[in-house]
Amino acid sequence: MNIAPRTQPMPVFDCTQRVLRYQQVRDVTTGLCHSLTPEDMALQSMPDASPAKWHSAHSSWFFEHFLLAPYLKDYRPFDPQFNYLFNSYYYTVGGMHPRSERGLLSRPDVAEVAHYRAHVDEHMHKLLDARGREPELAYLTTLGLNHEQQHQELLLMDIKHLFARNPLQPRWRALPAPVSTSALPLKFIPCPEGLLPIGHAGSDFAFDNETPRHRVFIQAHALANRLTTNNDYLEFIRAGGYSAPALWLSDGWASVQREGWNRPLYWNQDMTAEFTLGGERELDSHAPVCHVSYYEADAFARWAGARLPTEAEWETLAADRAIEGNFMEQGRFHPLGASAVAEPPYQMYGDVWEWTMSPYTPYPGFKPLAGTLGEYNGKFMANQMVLRGGSCATPREHVRASYRNFFYPQQRWQFSGLRLAQDA
Amino acid sequence: MNIAPRTQPMPVFDCTQRVLRYQQVRDVTTGLCHSLTPEDMALQSMPDASPAKWHSAHSSWFFEHFLLAPYLKDYRPFDPQFNYLFNSYYYTVGGMHPRSERGLLSRPDVAEVAHYRAHVDEHMHKLLDARGREPELAYLTTLGLNHEQQHQELLLMDIKHLFARNPLQPRWRALPAPVSTSALPLKFIPCPEGLLPIGHAGSDFAFDNETPRHRVFIQAHALANRLTTNNDYLEFIRAGGYSAPALWLSDGWASVQREGWNRPLYWNQDMTAEFTLGGERELDSHAPVCHVSYYEADAFARWAGARLPTEAEWETLAADRAIEGNFMEQGRFHPLGASAVAEPPYQMYGDVWEWTMSPYTPYPGFKPLAGTLGEYNGKFMANQMVLRGGSCATPREHVRASYRNFFYPQQRWQFSGLRLAQDA
Amino acid sequence: MNIAPRTQPMPVFDCTQRVLRYQQVRDVTTGLCHSLTPEDMALQSMPDASPAKWHSAHSSWFFEHFLLAPYLKDYRPFDPQFNYLFNSYYYTVGGMHPRSERGLLSRPDVAEVAHYRAHVDEHMHKLLDARGREPELAYLTTLGLNHEQQHQELLLMDIKHLFARNPLQPRWRALPAPVSTSALPLKFIPCPEGLLPIGHAGSDFAFDNETPRHRVFIQAHALANRLTTNNDYLEFIRAGGYSAPALWLSDGWASVQREGWNRPLYWNQDMTAEFTLGGERELDSHAPVCHVSYYEADAFARWAGARLPTEAEWETLAADRAIEGNFMEQGRFHPLGASAVAEPPYQMYGDVWEWTMSPYTPYPGFKPLAGTLGEYNGKFMANQMVLRGGSCATPREHVRASYRNFFYPQQRWQFSGLRLAQDA
Amino acid sequence: MNIAPRTQPMPVFDCTQRVLRYQQVRDVTTGLCHSLTPEDMALQSMPDASPAKWHSAHSSWFFEHFLLAPYLKDYRPFDPQFNYLFNSYYYTVGGMHPRSERGLLSRPDVAEVAHYRAHVDEHMHKLLDARGREPELAYLTTLGLNHEQQHQELLLMDIKHLFARNPLQPRWRALPAPVSTSALPLKFIPCPEGLLPIGHAGSDFAFDNETPRHRVFIQAHALANRLTTNNDYLEFIRAGGYSAPALWLSDGWASVQREGWNRPLYWNQDMTAEFTLGGERELDSHAPVCHVSYYEADAFARWAGARLPTEAEWETLAADRAIEGNFMEQGRFHPLGASAVAEPPYQMYGDVWEWTMSPYTPYPGFKPLAGTLGEYNGKFMANQMVLRGGSCATPREHVRASYRNFFYPQQRWQFSGLRLAQDA
Repeated sequence: MNIAPRTQPMPVFDCTQRVLRYQQVRDVTTGLCHSLTPEDMALQSMPDASPAKWHSAHSSWFFEHFLLAPYLKDYRPFDPQFNYLFNSYYYTVGGMHPRSERGLLSRPDVAEVAHYRAHVDEHMHKLLDARGREPELAYLTTLGLNHEQQHQELLLMDIKHLFARNPLQPRWRALPAPVSTSALPLKFIPCPEGLLPIGHAGSDFAFDNETPRHRVFIQAHALANRLTTNNDYLEFIRAGGYSAPALWLSDGWASVQREGWNRPLYWNQDMTAEFTLGGERELDSHAPVCHVSYYEADAFARWAGARLPTEAEWETLAADRAIEGNFMEQGRFHPLGASAVAEPPYQMYGDVWEWTMSPYTPYPGFKPLAGTLGEYNGKFMANQMVLRGGSCATPREHVRASYRNFFYPQQRWQFSGLRLAQDA
Repeated sequence: MNIAPRTQPMPVFDCTQRVLRYQQVRDVTTGLCHSLTPEDMALQSMPDASPAKWHSAHSSWFFEHFLLAPYLKDYRPFDPQFNYLFNSYYYTVGGMHPRSERGLLSRPDVAEVAHYRAHVDEHMHKLLDARGREPELAYLTTLGLNHEQQHQELLLMDIKHLFARNPLQPRWRALPAPVSTSALPLKFIPCPEGLLPIGHAGSDFAFDNETPRHRVFIQAHALANRLTTNNDYLEFIRAGGYSAPALWLSDGWASVQREGWNRPLYWNQDMTAEFTLGGERELDSHAPVCHVSYYEADAFARWAGARLPTEAEWETLAADRAIEGNFMEQGRFHPLGASAVAEPPYQMYGDVWEWTMSPYTPYPGFKPLAGTLGEYNGKFMANQMVLRGGSCATPREHVRASYRNFFYPQQRWQFSGLRLAQDA
Repeated sequence: MNIAPRTQPMPVFDCTQRVLRYQQVRDVTTGLCHSLTPEDMALQSMPDASPAKWHSAHSSWFFEHFLLAPYLKDYRPFDPQFNYLFNSYYYTVGGMHPRSERGLLSRPDVAEVAHYRAHVDEHMHKLLDARGREPELAYLTTLGLNHEQQHQELLLMDIKHLFARNPLQPRWRALPAPVSTSALPLKFIPCPEGLLPIGHAGSDFAFDNETPRHRVFIQAHALANRLTTNNDYLEFIRAGGYSAPALWLSDGWASVQREGWNRPLYWNQDMTAEFTLGGERELDSHAPVCHVSYYEADAFARWAGARLPTEAEWETLAADRAIEGNFMEQGRFHPLGASAVAEPPYQMYGDVWEWTMSPYTPYPGFKPLAGTLGEYNGKFMANQMVLRGGSCATPREHVRASYRNFFYPQQRWQFSGLRLAQDA
Repeated sequence: MNIAPRTQPMPVFDCTQRVLRYQQVRDVTTGLCHSLTPEDMALQSMPDASPAKWHSAHSSWFFEHFLLAPYLKDYRPFDPQFNYLFNSYYYTVGGMHPRSERGLLSRPDVAEVAHYRAHVDEHMHKLLDARGREPELAYLTTLGLNHEQQHQELLLMDIKHLFARNPLQPRWRALPAPVSTSALPLKFIPCPEGLLPIGHAGSDFAFDNETPRHRVFIQAHALANRLTTNNDYLEFIRAGGYSAPALWLSDGWASVQREGWNRPLYWNQDMTAEFTLGGERELDSHAPVCHVSYYEADAFARWAGARLPTEAEWETLAADRAIEGNFMEQGRFHPLGASAVAEPPYQMYGDVWEWTMSPYTPYPGFKPLAGTLGEYNGKFMANQMVLRGGSCATPREHVRASYRNFFYPQQRWQFSGLRLAQDA
């Protein structure tokens, strides 16, 4: 079995620290659930979301199914039915519990899922001790850990959505007070045309959808020095943005009408406060707008006489910048205003995922992973849009310049914002 | 404020034992939840069902809102938001959390709901001690306890439905082994025509919808000596009952097509076993068929060359029989076959609610309770059918000959079966 | 083959004039379509409605299927596929074109349907000439003609609904100007209790659902001397009737919310005019309110401190009154205000169908017609409410005191109004 | 008012023949309706489709609104309400009749729409005579005629869909017998990498979405010499293509499940015949497969170990080939098998629109037309996929190498097929 994509070298997994590293990532998930009750962990607030318990079990199942079962001698699954319950979408594995019914599973309960995690961890330690240096295992473990990190962000998105639906508006955790920020003038950074490479290079881990690295001809253009702020977005709203169909894509306008959108998700009705993982909080004018759909980002850009960047434009600008910013590790779990101390472009990484105008499609020469793991990314390459740069709920190590996140244009429960672009 | 219906005398509440009696009923609810995890109690498997936690809180809210708030001096609500969260359908109280979103409330958690119950109980004890002898309080307390009992049965129905949706098929509780039973020949008991009284008589508690007692002219007819059994129903299925539109009401046939019905709810695919509150169990041929909709009961009766009874026919036959049978107190939580030892008609009470062919309409001269409590029963008097006799999940004290239960004709998660009738 | 219900004598069909009579009824349908374009006749404005062309073809199919095919020697169907296309709901005949797709049939076109009618008529003449005196044929022909009359009213309802959906608001026909009327004081006519017969008596034609005649015990009550008028209903609206949930049945309130109801169907937004078959016309305050659903009729009655009559109450009052009123033959096709010249109760027949509070259920001892025709009425005996008395779109000969019309409580495109009742 | 896009020169409109040319295109629409009854022209078989009558009126409205109203002195609209009824989707014009209710308009009838067309034509003649040489008018007239041609193809698609829903399976017209064809071996034509221009060049008319011409870096690849045939597609079906989720995009698999797809639209159940505009016809194995969705085309390609082309790959191969093929003018209205006489790649133009793997997005530097006409193309640039090359229902003059058609990936009532591509 050769799982790695043909065009991609085996990534280096730190073999001496492998168990430690494995457990560090796994423990982050557990930590995120620390303040959650069993009920919090069992509920599903909409079909797009999953219960925290499910995330916890599914990310364990990933290791069990793709590592323990095939590689650990005499491994016996914790519970054979979990293969059905916690398979997310791998049809080539077999049947699966319907996504929209994940919130109907009161059993296994939180305690049993904790046992499941412990069971998987214990056996993963054994496997990593024995064979963790083998490239295939190292690759798969890295994949499993990156997968776990994706579910860490999903778990936070889903808890935030669940709590926002509760009239009691519970908070996930007391969060640090916001840092006061000030307005930064919007400027556009010119970028010349060129035939430039994008996609993952080198031997570090990346997802199959970031490969192969290839050349793209990019027209001359300019990117905003900063993210679009709450203040910018309020102007758009006050100018009647949500009632001007000419600003919207046709499907976007249909969403506005059907959903009754008139402001970002989580803003309160008078647009002075927003719901955060730390409860309701005053809206910071200078912080980046967050929880807008692609349709809203696109309409805003049109109103502003600009457009969204392509993913190639974004990546070529981001490529040589340090991956620093407001990530999960900062413990803020909410976007911050830009600091003028840094050098522009500000906040390319962290704070909010940036919508691009690029549909999520395969790169030229794309080969999905062989076997079941080929279902990981490739089958979602229709109807979704690419987002770049990571958010305040993304582990810092998880992102890179070539990282491609993707959501449907009508979704907005992810930490998504935007940066403007212009033709030269 | 005069809450009792005009035409109904104040019921006698046992004043000397009133706190004891109150607590006995309340403790039954707690007991039913004994084996449930917090997750079990938080989930909602369909819009018709509610989380166990919600039942527990709502039945407490009923006492808080209708007794403590108006009658207990200086009473302060446990949490003012609960008035919104745990109001079921009383528009005259104010807004309410949407029914279909009861399963989105991870908070208040199970522990807090337990505190809420304790808080309400403590204050109810005070109120009952002080004023429990007053007729209005006695009446309202009795109403609240009857309301609680209704939610006890709903809680069981809802837990059964939730567990049945879980591929792990958890069991609520280990149940006593079924008693072996044998076939009883079907006979029809002739009943002559007459102008007969139905409806609640006397001063004991009854719901407003059982009043006023009034005369009905009943044609000569005959009622089956026993309930329709699983065996009877299997014959109907094997004879092609589910694929013969001529046997069905038009709306019933539409349900069959839309829902893909081909057997009672909870039967397994090969029709040898059924899901119970004690897990899957072999189908007992001689036990009454259960969890059929009105449409199925009606189609079965038509196939059998018979019909369902009217509620007046049922009540006049049941009126002078002792209220004995397989009720919640038996601890079986599942219908049993009839015992030939008893005298026919068998199983008029307990085991399964019996569908009648009577739409749920007001009795001539019906007056709903005054004020908000007028919403209790009257506003449901459209599109639903009356069921009679109580089930294995009904507290014995809760039913009587005049008791009118009601469900929509397509619903079948309640413990519902049928008894045949014939024109003379 | 014995088609007539067991308990019902063969009706007398005027055998000497039988062809004439047959053609008279058939020609009314053709006349109603006189002003319609082929497009008007082909469209379907909602699943409840059917294209005029379909009504025309289906009522012909009824004669073809139930009379020509079984009784006319060597009869060959006009087109064998019409058995599929124009079967309405007789499952025992075989498959049928889905009701909601009747508006997808551009073919057969109007001209071909006219040929079909002519073909059926020509052969019916032959059959009636030869065997029209035989009781079974006489009965079936009478049934077919009554069936045709029902579709005449449906055709008018459906054209009105279609035209109302068209922003051009076409009119079906120029209608006679309304007669000016004046207010009549509302009075209640007392009716004593009694064990009274209802249902069809005698040997004239009646539908199976009107039989058998049987005794009902009726409580003392009173019925309004007149219908509820537009003025009465406006008062209800102005008093906030559509925003007071306490006035509504639970399912009714759900309809109000879901459909956004705030006035009768066909009233314009400022409630000064209504859409009629003759185009928009000023609202006549003293004319009976029309095109209200059961839920609206019931809420109005509750607001007025009254209730709707039962069908038995209505029938016993109507039984000895002449069947006179504003019927289809008057050519008004719209309800008129009551004339004080007549004797109360006014307008028991004609103008508007009167909602009763009686669910449509079988009479004691009801036997549907044998064979396929048993599907005519019986299978709709769930979830619908009985209306009495006929309307301005009903042929006068078609109704009688025992006639039971029925619609779902949320439907309101029929000519439906109400008369109040009170307990004594 | 400057309507043309900034970057596009004014197209040359043949000014000496301008009225003749205008009328030629207009008359094609009329000719396509020749065999249709008024009923055929009034019905709407699904929300995506429109009645033929609507197409006829809407394409006239386009001239009335964008040419006659602003440019013809003293022009009075034929009927002011038509601006509401026949506006398709131009929000900046004002309100519009809901798309899904186009089939509810029996009025204006076919005759009145014919008058409307004649009225518009008469005034357009006047306008063209007087001012047809002015560049802006010439441009707008050309745009209107291209718009009319798009609706000609839509009209055929919609009539085919309507007739296919009718159990009588009417035919639109007797079509010429198919030409017998034979199998052509599948070969791949290699195409080297390069930085190549795509998009419209020159001064002829093109839609705004084809501009601006710009360079794209294309990787080395190969395109199939021929279209995928019915035979190829049957192999895919027989190999279980419709039941192998691993072959499908995730959203595609959801469509398969939801819609119950197991073959192309219009194939009969045993896959030996297909419904055409000339009625049912035997399936020609060597003809290109038609009426498949993007999801099906993509799954087929994956199964075949290939992929779909990008639009740039398609355009650069097509760019220097003559625009010849089986277009509307051939009068076949159905795809034919390829003739080996021609030189490969076969059938780049005509027969079937070819799905590409390119989402429909703006070209770099895209500027929509100014004003209302900016709504023509740009607002659909989300969630749709590009198709190229025209079909047997497309007017030959209407297409060119740079022409971009677009449909949602789940749509398949258009004449859509596919050509395979491969990475080098």
